[in-house]
Formats: sequence, C-alpha cells, structure tokens
Amino acid sequence: MNSFIYDIPTRVYFGENQLGHLGKELAGYGRRVLLVYGGGSIKKTGLYNKVVTEIKKAGLELFECSGIEPNPRVTSVNRGADICKKEKIDVLLAVGGGSTIDATKFIGAAAFYEGDAWDIMTEKAPIVNFLPIVTVLTLSATGSEMDAGGVISNIETKDKIGLMHPVLLPKVSFLDPTNTYTVNEYQTACGAADMLNHILEVYFNMNQDLYMLDCVMEGLMKTIIKYAPVAMSDPENYEARANLMWASSWAINGFVDGGKQQAWSCHPMEHEISAYYDITHGLGLAILTPRWLTYTLDETTVSKFYQFGVNVFDIDKNLEPMTVAKKSVEMISEFLFHTLKLQSTLTEIGIDDSNFSIMAKKACEGNVLPGFKPLNQQDIENIFRMCL
Amino acid sequence: MNSFIYDIPTRVYFGENQLGHLGKELAGYGRRVLLVYGGGSIKKTGLYNKVVTEIKKAGLELFECSGIEPNPRVTSVNRGADICKKEKIDVLLAVGGGSTIDATKFIGAAAFYEGDAWDIMTEKAPIVNFLPIVTVLTLSATGSEMDAGGVISNIETKDKIGLMHPVLLPKVSFLDPTNTYTVNEYQTACGAADMLNHILEVYFNMNQDLYMLDCVMEGLMKTIIKYAPVAMSDPENYEARANLMWASSWAINGFVDGGKQQAWSCHPMEHEISAYYDITHGLGLAILTPRWLTYTLDETTVSKFYQFGVNVFDIDKNLEPMTVAKKSVEMISEFLFHTLKLQSTLTEIGIDDSNFSIMAKKACEGNVLPGFKPLNQQDIENIFRMCL
Repeated sequence: MNSFIYDIPTRVYFGENQLGHLGKELAGYGRRVLLVYGGGSIKKTGLYNKVVTEIKKAGLELFECSGIEPNPRVTSVNRGADICKKEKIDVLLAVGGGSTIDATKFIGAAAFYEGDAWDIMTEKAPIVNFLPIVTVLTLSATGSEMDAGGVISNIETKDKIGLMHPVLLPKVSFLDPTNTYTVNEYQTACGAADMLNHILEVYFNMNQDLYMLDCVMEGLMKTIIKYAPVAMSDPENYEARANLMWASSWAINGFVDGGKQQAWSCHPMEHEISAYYDITHGLGLAILTPRWLTYTLDETTVSKFYQFGVNVFDIDKNLEPMTVAKKSVEMISEFLFHTLKLQSTLTEIGIDDSNFSIMAKKACEGNVLPGFKPLNQQDIENIFRMCL
Repeated sequence: MNSFIYDIPTRVYFGENQLGHLGKELAGYGRRVLLVYGGGSIKKTGLYNKVVTEIKKAGLELFECSGIEPNPRVTSVNRGADICKKEKIDVLLAVGGGSTIDATKFIGAAAFYEGDAWDIMTEKAPIVNFLPIVTVLTLSATGSEMDAGGVISNIETKDKIGLMHPVLLPKVSFLDPTNTYTVNEYQTACGAADMLNHILEVYFNMNQDLYMLDCVMEGLMKTIIKYAPVAMSDPENYEARANLMWASSWAINGFVDGGKQQAWSCHPMEHEISAYYDITHGLGLAILTPRWLTYTLDETTVSKFYQFGVNVFDIDKNLEPMTVAKKSVEMISEFLFHTLKLQSTLTEIGIDDSNFSIMAKKACEGNVLPGFKPLNQQDIENIFRMCL
C-alpha cells in the first residue's frame, strides 16, 4: 500500500440557486475577470446572462474569450493567454464542460509565458505562475471542475497531451445539476462513459490497497449505471443529474486513487484516436473499454474482474471466478452499447486501421504503456483492431 | 434534495514516513509552536521524540501543553489558551486522538478571548479569531482530524457541548496508520463503534438525497465491519489500520452529508451519558445504537433499514422488508457486542436509571431532539431504559 498526499481544496457550491455566491468568490481574487466559454450554448440556455449579471452586480470588469472547441486546441489557449496579458486579468471564469475548463486551466498558466502555450504542454516550459480559476459546470463528464489536470490538442501535429499540475486545480466550482438539463441524450451517454472509465482506470489494479476506496469506486460506478439512462430518457430529472454531476467530480479528483499511482491505459489510447479523428472523448473510451478489459483478463487478473462483477453488476458470487469475470465484461458492453446506445465499433464512426500503427506507437511512446497490464505497441494495435 | 457547500481544504499526509513534511508545514504558519497532547502515551511510543525532532530540525520554537483528558475539559482549554497568549504562539500541533484534537481546536479559538473558554462553547462569546491547527493522529475514531467540530466537557456543570465552526478545520493532518498500532483491543473497538455511528447518524434519513453518497456510506460501513476485528486481533496489521484510519476521517468530514443537514440523534444522547459518567464516547454510542434503531423502526422507516441490511450486511434481498430490517438490527448488535466485544448494557458499566430523566431533558433541551425520527424527553428516557 502506498502513501499519498490528499489535497483537494476546491470549494464546491452544489445545487440550484448557488450562483449568488459567484460575485463574492471572483472578487476574492481580483476585479478583472476573463469569462471563457465554448460555442455559445450558454447564451441559448440563459446561463450566460445569469453569470454576467452576477459579475456586474459584484462591480467586476468583464472580458470574454469564447469559441473554445471540444477537444480544445492550443490555438485557443494562446488566444486566451494573450487576452490575459493585454487586459491584466486577475481571475478566470470557465463556464462550460471539460473542454472549456481544460482550456481555461492552461490559459491561466500560459498567461505568464511569452512563448507558445504548446511548450507548456510538452513540458519544454515549466509552469511558473498561474491565474486562479473559478468554474461553472455544464456537463458531467471529465471531472475537470475538481481535478488538477487538463488535455489540449494540437491539430497541426495531431498531438493531444494531458498534463497535471497542482496549480491547475480550480479554486471554486459551481455544480448546479439544472445546468446539465439541456445536455442531449448522446452527450449524456458519452459523459457517463467517460466517468465510468475514469474509475475503471484506477479500480482495475492488482496492488494491495485501500479496500475502502474500492467500495467507494463500486458505489460511484453503480451510481453512473443507475442514473445515466434516467438522465437520457428524462433530461430534467434532478436526482439523476445531481448524482451524475457529483459522481463525475469524485471519479477523478484523486480521492479514489489513494496512492495507487497506477498509470492509465484507455486514456492514452483514446487520446490518439481523438487526436487523429477529433471524436468525442467519452465515445472513444466507450469503444475501447470492453476490448481493453477482454485483453487484460487472464488467470492473474481474474480476481479483480470477479470483484467488479459481483459488487457492481450483482452477478451471482457463487459462479466460477472466470465465468463472473467474462460476464462482467459482457455487462459493461451491454451497458455502454445498449443502455447508453453508443456506437460500439470504430468502423461505425468511420475509422479504419490505416493509422493504427502510428497511433499505437505514439500511445506507448515507442515503449510500453504501463498500467493494469503493461501494453506494448503490438498489444495496443491488437486492442485497436478489436474495436473495428 | 438540498443544496450544499463542499469545503474541506485539510491537506492530509497519509501513510508511513510522512513526518518529514511536518516542519515545513508548521513553518508555513509561524515560528512558535504549541504542542498539545494527552497523558504521555506518545512518549512511550516514541512519537513524541519524532515530532520534537522534526520541530527542532525546522528551527521552530517549541512550547508544550500536555495532560489533555479523554472527554477533554474546558479547564484544559483555558490552560492551553493561557500559554498561547503568554508565549505568543503562532500555530498549534495536536498529537493524539479526538480528545486532544478537539481541545486543541478550542485552545486556538480561546487564545483570542479574554474570558472563560466555556463562553465560546455556550456561544455566549463568538469565535472572532483562531490559531491554525496541524494534527498527528494516533487513534481512528472521532474524525476530528478532518472536520470542523469538537466536543468539550465541563465537569462542574456536568455539561458536554459540541460545536462546529469552519475555522476549527485542521490545516494539515498526518495520518500514519502505524501510529495506531499501540491502540489496544478495547479502544480499537470503541473507535470503530464511534465511526460506525457517525455514518449511521447521516445514513438513516428518509429524505430523498444523493444515492451516490448512500453507496459511499455503505462502503465505509463495510470497511469498518471488515477491518475492526482484524485490527483488534492483529494490532500491527497495516491494511486494517490504514482502512480504519481513512474511513474515520471520511465518516464525519461532511462529504457524506451532501446537504442532508439532518440533526443527529445518538450523539446528543451519548453526550449526556458521558457528561454524567465520563465513559468512553464510542462505548456509549455502541450501547445506544441498536436501541435507537429498534425504537425508530416502523412501517414508515422500514425501507431504509432494508437498504442497510441488504447492502451492508448482505442479507437476502428477497426476504420481507421488515424481516430484513429486524435482522439488520440484530446483525449490528452482534457486531458491536460480540465481534467488537463491547459491553452491551449501561448496567454492565455501573450506570442505573437515577439520572435518566434529567439526562433526557438535557439531551432534547426540554423540547424535541430532531433527527431520523424526532425524539421527545419521554422517547429518550425510553431509549435509555432499553440500554439497562
């Protein structure tokens, strides 16, 4: 069992009608606020007006950086950083989902760097200073609202890089489940697949660790499995949206890791898929997850699959461990591809094997992808092929 | 479902060999450190020397306040506050269990008050300022290492008052499971009963709330039930001590509450027992818990007991709900009085009914104790009698 440092000081305002605290929280960091958002859906829903009203009410100066893409691009990070420098921004306010929040995090770091923000992503340039970040979440998925990481894409080089740094942790996040009522069925499903995978990446681990956290992870997975279909069919179901929203934060804020420090497997593989084909991250993860599980199941790992099947899918604990294990993979496939109605193959979304070799090489950086089971380039290519 | 603010910024160093961070953490708050501890067991175990070495290594000035009692007394709080004023203390370091940490919290508040610290407990005097608190935990039980509350006793008036305030949250806590290896079988059992009750006080709730948190609470309870007997029979079992330690913090740090804001039931009743008879808090809770559950079980609450029995004690879900409910109370009694070997009645520990009437009146403040099921003075007296 490893030691660890638990340090998640993000303050969260959870629930409806908490936005009255926004002005005070922002003002705690300064007067000049840069509002960062995506394609404008927050204007349609009315959230933009609510946020701007609170900023004005607090007497703060508002600047804007809109147009953050899904799979946010380094060009947007550079654009936001330029505004910060020019306008002497004090605090960043991200209103959106994981893409907007991720971009905002690196805008905050790039605001203190004179070169291309990509240098920060490639760790050519260290993060030396940062702007504080406040978020208003509109999509339950990536957990960026309460974690210290983010992922940025470079379209030119077809690279997608994730980076963690303690200063990237938002200071304050507003989690109002009603702000996710307008998330459509498909994006709700992709978000659920994303958070489920965040937990699986940590849960599937053969190290001796804190059983308590296994129980917590099983509870989070049961929550996602219970409420994702409810939110899909009844988008304004507060109970479902609330459970999914809080589960999204706790799936990845570091609590469940408890010192395991295991490298992740599906995420590096998926980042190559969405770097090459710009697909929704959660969909890529959904397609990969059951193949990765199938590929890693053997006599040495079966006990973890058994635990998963019994505790999450309520499979009869008296069955043979390997039977339970295989059934658990079937049940997660059933959940992802039937309950969540997600496409089940790369072929279905127009991706063939033409880039698998280079994608596999990049995923393992030409070496071995550590994790639940170490995967070399050939293993990763095999898993990609299982997704066709 | 209620809204809530999640705000638990305590940094936790979890695991062995983390004490090297102590000096740096203390130094972040100032040079003059008051070390607060209990009856000297930390000198026997060697922890005192380790802590003092780190303080000296960091070049800090060390002051001491020892002799904090179990069920810590306001006289100790006043004594500690006097040292803070006289020596111009910058930061408090509590090394011990919940009693030591609770006393330290109120020493930090009373250091800025000129009168009797009891005025703070009775809320006659508001908390206006405070000293930052760092803790090194030696007993898994109260969760004081990561929560914003504490309980102080007044022997003269036979009062025991709990108080919550955000400034009481420790800044940093060191949770090294090996520091609990010397906790004996009985105190390990009392600690387990305490944390189990912290969860039950929140879990038994008929409001619609975050299912996700119910799953987390069930996981924490299963963890305590699994590992308390292991730690009792094998006191140096790291896995057991680690799971109990981290569970103790999360049982009561506020996370599992998720806006329920339900008043607690057993704790106010137990505080009267230990105020009158100075017994170990966890033991009082153990004796009360099954009686309180029995008293509150009826057709309107049976569904929660059913959920508890099926998910925590793995009782056959196909049985009648009331059958499962009654069996779940039997199983928790079995756990507390056979597995944990705790005394099962007040009679056994020499307490008779002579003060029940006044204790019941004080527990409900002459009115009604709200909570899972509101209890008036007569109800509370009935529950006390069930404990004979």
